[in-house]
Amino acid sequence: MRVFIVHAHHEPKSFNGAMTETAVAALAAAGHEVILSDLYRMGFDPVSDRRNFTTVKDATYLKQQAEESFAHQHQGFAPQIATELEKLFWCEALIFQFPLWWFGLPAILKGWVDRVFALGAVYGGGRRYDNGVLAGRRAMCALTTGGAATSYGENGINGEIGSLLYPINHGIFAFTGFTVIEPFVVYGPARLTEMERVSELARYRARLLTLAEAPSLMYRRLEEYDEGGVLRVGRPEARAVSRS
Amino acid sequence: MRVFIVHAHHEPKSFNGAMTETAVAALAAAGHEVILSDLYRMGFDPVSDRRNFTTVKDATYLKQQAEESFAHQHQGFAPQIATELEKLFWCEALIFQFPLWWFGLPAILKGWVDRVFALGAVYGGGRRYDNGVLAGRRAMCALTTGGAATSYGENGINGEIGSLLYPINHGIFAFTGFTVIEPFVVYGPARLTEMERVSELARYRARLLTLAEAPSLMYRRLEEYDEGGVLRVGRPEARAVSRS
Repeated sequence: MRVFIVHAHHEPKSFNGAMTETAVAALAAAGHEVILSDLYRMGFDPVSDRRNFTTVKDATYLKQQAEESFAHQHQGFAPQIATELEKLFWCEALIFQFPLWWFGLPAILKGWVDRVFALGAVYGGGRRYDNGVLAGRRAMCALTTGGAATSYGENGINGEIGSLLYPINHGIFAFTGFTVIEPFVVYGPARLTEMERVSELARYRARLLTLAEAPSLMYRRLEEYDEGGVLRVGRPEARAVSRS
Repeated sequence: MRVFIVHAHHEPKSFNGAMTETAVAALAAAGHEVILSDLYRMGFDPVSDRRNFTTVKDATYLKQQAEESFAHQHQGFAPQIATELEKLFWCEALIFQFPLWWFGLPAILKGWVDRVFALGAVYGGGRRYDNGVLAGRRAMCALTTGGAATSYGENGINGEIGSLLYPINHGIFAFTGFTVIEPFVVYGPARLTEMERVSELARYRARLLTLAEAPSLMYRRLEEYDEGGVLRVGRPEARAVSRS
């Protein structure tokens, strides 16, 4: 399997660093191919605007999606974006490795999505959700939290982890066609003992070696919605549920 | 009222630009004070790491929260961060003005939160949620979407807008103590007629002039949770609901 890890932590000796190190080693040892974008090490710039392009469609008004579509048609992505797009289309499995910062992606990773997931290249023309450009590929969030698991449970004060990740799993991964693997979460690694940390890395290694068949989240299909994007049968939208 | 608008759009002539222009003019005309951080115009850097600080607590291992706490104790925030913190503590109402990008905040705004909402300064030592440092102040998302309102409704294909904004409203605003004003959403301004756009701006003006009493989202109180962050009574956590 071809695996692309987008890593968003500034400290190589962090637990996130250990997770990615584990992933690269375990996947390679099992014969998989791995590409890593270590965003902090690359000095990745997460700000999205005209810097994404070498082409200009309209110099008087910046409409990002129109520029993206134009750049896609005219090979006009800036080298940094073009390279990430190549990695994205190369991979069969995409992993976002990050610490949960303010209940979401660190800006450096959010901006990687803002800039790389360009109209024309990754979606557009009706290509979304199960009809998405990246359909057939798998994607997974691998993350750490500051708080304990209980605080991210169904009755947790911080909100259920699935609700917090919904904009990422559904809005970024599923929207572009990915099959969304259940997130791999390590809760509060800073408070774990050394043995517990080793155990968590072993658990992660096991997940990595079953990426191709690991349980995925289930979402409704595009055809279940009308042209206004409303569910035809009128039932409340199903939350993401595990496929057993 | 002292209002602080954090604006995250790269095109001044955009509808987001018009919303902020409307806000600044309407609030000033009504006698309110307004400060604007126009992140793209400021060239705000959203990447969070040692660049946030002039002080160093541990040069061998970057633990962001420890550095934040240390910087808070020793006036060690980088000038760009210190200035934003001053604006934050000056304001009585905070507005995030942004286009919904990939179902969340544009990276430049997410990074503003990652960097400015520092441990010690904005939370920590048990100060969170209704006991938060910023309690007594109000905050609101003002945003635009690409898709139609129907697609963000209860049965909408893109997910209910409240679910998408939950990590922001609950995780960023409520976590730090803000009273969270119901979000102000303009759906698909690009597809509106000129008259509809004018009408939406008038609707926004009306909201702005009632910021102090506009309906807010209701969240549970800190005391309802045990030390593990689990709801004491065991009922499923209530979703954000409107206070009538």
